[in-house]
Amino acid sequence: MSSTYQRIVLASRPQGNVKADNFRLETLPLPEIKDGEVLIRNHFLSLDPYMRGRMEEAKSYAAPQPLNETMIGGTVGEIIASNNPRFAVGDKVLGMLGWTEVAVSDGALLRKLDAASPIPLSAYLGAVGMPGLTAWYGLTQIMQPKAGETVVVSAASGAVGSVVGQLAKQMSCRVVGIAGGAEKCAYVVNELGFDACVDYKAGNLDADLAAATPDGIDAVFENVGGEVFDASLARMNPFGRIAMCGMISGYNGEPIAIKNARVFLTMRLTMRGFIVSEHMDLWPQGLKELGTLVATGKLKFRESIAEGIAQAPDAFIGLLKGQNFGKQLVKLN
Amino acid sequence: MSSTYQRIVLASRPQGNVKADNFRLETLPLPEIKDGEVLIRNHFLSLDPYMRGRMEEAKSYAAPQPLNETMIGGTVGEIIASNNPRFAVGDKVLGMLGWTEVAVSDGALLRKLDAASPIPLSAYLGAVGMPGLTAWYGLTQIMQPKAGETVVVSAASGAVGSVVGQLAKQMSCRVVGIAGGAEKCAYVVNELGFDACVDYKAGNLDADLAAATPDGIDAVFENVGGEVFDASLARMNPFGRIAMCGMISGYNGEPIAIKNARVFLTMRLTMRGFIVSEHMDLWPQGLKELGTLVATGKLKFRESIAEGIAQAPDAFIGLLKGQNFGKQLVKLN
Repeated sequence: MSSTYQRIVLASRPQGNVKADNFRLETLPLPEIKDGEVLIRNHFLSLDPYMRGRMEEAKSYAAPQPLNETMIGGTVGEIIASNNPRFAVGDKVLGMLGWTEVAVSDGALLRKLDAASPIPLSAYLGAVGMPGLTAWYGLTQIMQPKAGETVVVSAASGAVGSVVGQLAKQMSCRVVGIAGGAEKCAYVVNELGFDACVDYKAGNLDADLAAATPDGIDAVFENVGGEVFDASLARMNPFGRIAMCGMISGYNGEPIAIKNARVFLTMRLTMRGFIVSEHMDLWPQGLKELGTLVATGKLKFRESIAEGIAQAPDAFIGLLKGQNFGKQLVKLN
Repeated sequence: MSSTYQRIVLASRPQGNVKADNFRLETLPLPEIKDGEVLIRNHFLSLDPYMRGRMEEAKSYAAPQPLNETMIGGTVGEIIASNNPRFAVGDKVLGMLGWTEVAVSDGALLRKLDAASPIPLSAYLGAVGMPGLTAWYGLTQIMQPKAGETVVVSAASGAVGSVVGQLAKQMSCRVVGIAGGAEKCAYVVNELGFDACVDYKAGNLDADLAAATPDGIDAVFENVGGEVFDASLARMNPFGRIAMCGMISGYNGEPIAIKNARVFLTMRLTMRGFIVSEHMDLWPQGLKELGTLVATGKLKFRESIAEGIAQAPDAFIGLLKGQNFGKQLVKLN
């Protein structure tokens, strides 16, 4: 075993686009653990759009990522040394240990994973993790679609959108995805079972979305914002519901406008922004449902896996540009 | 009694600003009434911003106002002839009889008013009518403020806003109005008892609103839209609620943007557009509460009264420009 490990820290806050030099790769000696602590070797790091917000100093729902500290991030890994009776060497754990190969923890925020489960380890960062819960919460708690209603999901092939759409299909909705590119759209329809998918890069977003939603739209799960969201708003039916989950179209941190806000009034829409980490009371219910679906093959997911921690910055920049295809992970060890 | 009466019809749909020649004043012979019908002489006509939307042909929550027919509008008046056993000559009635001195009705949609009540007849078009109900519904069903929270109301001196603010004060909130001009702001604070009022015409909207809301904003009742709404959005606290009632700033019918929609996500806001006429199940409760408050002097209101039906178009155009001060009425007879 190596006597050093690597991590990535935030070196500077982005001015507009995130660039590779906003990050710094560091090599450090393996840390010692004290009484009650464990040492974890991470196998997978999750890359997620929310990290872009943390890179800003602006007021938001969470404190900014501090400079020169390990970038925040969800991880799955295993215990490689333990001074904590709750954990044995070899235990698989889910944590928020950040962009790092190795981490020390007192175990309080680690979740031990069932090694005997048919759920793959990486799924705890996706369909059976925060992205899946985000999808489940927005759909079941905010959008609450009825059978036969039309549901639209942007970033439909992504870690969150793909779960939203599959769950909505199980609720007997008409499900229309919006994604970037013909390959993603084909996947969304052919593999995930959406009824239709609109390629926003094809240049006819408004017309294509209208054709795919002949009865209008009853509920939207919004991950993108900007013109993609405006296109959905223009198709809303009365009493439509919008789960506002993300605005990745503004990945530079610039303000994102809603062009025609009058539709909120004329169609009596309800829009709610949410952060699933603030609704932990519902996590056990959501994780149980998602875990059962993944374990029984009823919820499909796809992963984009970057190899090695040094690739994390480029993979993250690609994620912000929509270059990933499915859940973006970094394989660490 | 005259053998003729006057009414105003929609002559043409506005191109941009509403103009007087979009309306036409007509003189007609007094109509005959058939069996089961009543003849009503209207005393007051209510002018309201929603009428601007009806003048458009665009898809909205209600059918467009037909051309060459009596403009839609709420009225209070009295029965002057009756072939309906439910109504006697002299009965006071509330109805949606439109911009007309005289109307025929089968009585089905007329509400008989209690002549012995201390509530003035005109109040049934304002604080104890649709505007008051609109205020009550948005505040109690959508905004649901807790004691000590900060509530912001735009168009604060108007028929709806003035009720929102007074009800919110009774719920022990900090209440801040936004209104156009020093005179309206003085009225809102000194007569209606708001804690503060920001004059959006003074040129320092953002800074003045920040100064008036030192603890941020927890709930907004929005009547205006545009830059007034953007200013409130920028001050929202986490989990803020927005009752979206109107966007009178776009009185030309043009799209109204929300400049920084990201705040819905970062502050996890909930916004709901609503039309009180779709929630009639709650009207009895709301009208009872509002009627008691007006009858006991605990809910103040102010009226701008135009004299004679020929003045209705100019009064309506003034309303769209914020030239009214309190509930805009037309006294008919």
